[in-house]
Amino acid sequence: MQTLEVGPAVEVDMREGMRRLASGVCVISSVDQQQQPFAMTATSVTSVSDTPPSLLVCVNKQASIHSAISASGRFCVNLLSRQQEDISNRCSGGEEGIGRFAVGNWNTSAELPYLQDCLAVFTCKTEQQMDYGTHRIFIARIEKVAVPTDAIIEPLIYLNGGYR
Amino acid sequence: MQTLEVGPAVEVDMREGMRRLASGVCVISSVDQQQQPFAMTATSVTSVSDTPPSLLVCVNKQASIHSAISASGRFCVNLLSRQQEDISNRCSGGEEGIGRFAVGNWNTSAELPYLQDCLAVFTCKTEQQMDYGTHRIFIARIEKVAVPTDAIIEPLIYLNGGYR
Repeated sequence: MQTLEVGPAVEVDMREGMRRLASGVCVISSVDQQQQPFAMTATSVTSVSDTPPSLLVCVNKQASIHSAISASGRFCVNLLSRQQEDISNRCSGGEEGIGRFAVGNWNTSAELPYLQDCLAVFTCKTEQQMDYGTHRIFIARIEKVAVPTDAIIEPLIYLNGGYR
Repeated sequence: MQTLEVGPAVEVDMREGMRRLASGVCVISSVDQQQQPFAMTATSVTSVSDTPPSLLVCVNKQASIHSAISASGRFCVNLLSRQQEDISNRCSGGEEGIGRFAVGNWNTSAELPYLQDCLAVFTCKTEQQMDYGTHRIFIARIEKVAVPTDAIIEPLIYLNGGYR
């Protein structure tokens, strides 16, 4: 049996513990009221219920996409494949706003921008939201799901501080 | 560029889309007010914020652990390793209540039951909760994190309807 050790600072321990929680990598996309597009890489996305079809995302209130989603209540969750690490990096890195759409097969002329060749696109409408700490949790009804018909399911996975 | 197809029934499409969202497998454990232990396999677990350290879990209101967590506000999230598929199956299958603790190195004499040799144990206290559809979302402060010091990080991952 292995020894479990509890460290003194829960914040540090939490990061160490959470490094072990594998998750698929998503890019959340939305537009603000001036139709300016925003995109942000996220791993805090999870399904809620299938009655009604719903998911939730946790977004830092400092992120620029936060105001867009708060105002419009609409966003897409684009689920990345193993080949789309560059999109994940672009949407979590230095570029902001429209610059994030320079990498990847984005359709930016749709009502909401979405990736045309990722593993799945969920088009969502916020129904409830709740603030906790630095983040806002958006619980959203899934209005539409698009999946490529010919894709092999090879997701981009984030684990232990890197891609898998 | 691949063709995206949108099917007629969002419920069906949602399941197909969500099969592609990889996630680490957790077992949530708690006790009711009579100190009876409950455990349930869950993939809808995600970190919320590190200020304060927090996570959320989505629990079906029909699940027996739901009343225990709702009443006590306390639970553990046990993050499974690749070797713990049997625990995942046990805690999502036919056995209920105490029968679920027959597989795995559980400590059931602690205040909350927890797995002594999984990838990480987060001890949590509910701070906010919200109902949506069939599920309740518990947003909880992480009070304690335990990680084995000698574990290789090989999580059990659920994807496309099976383990990876």
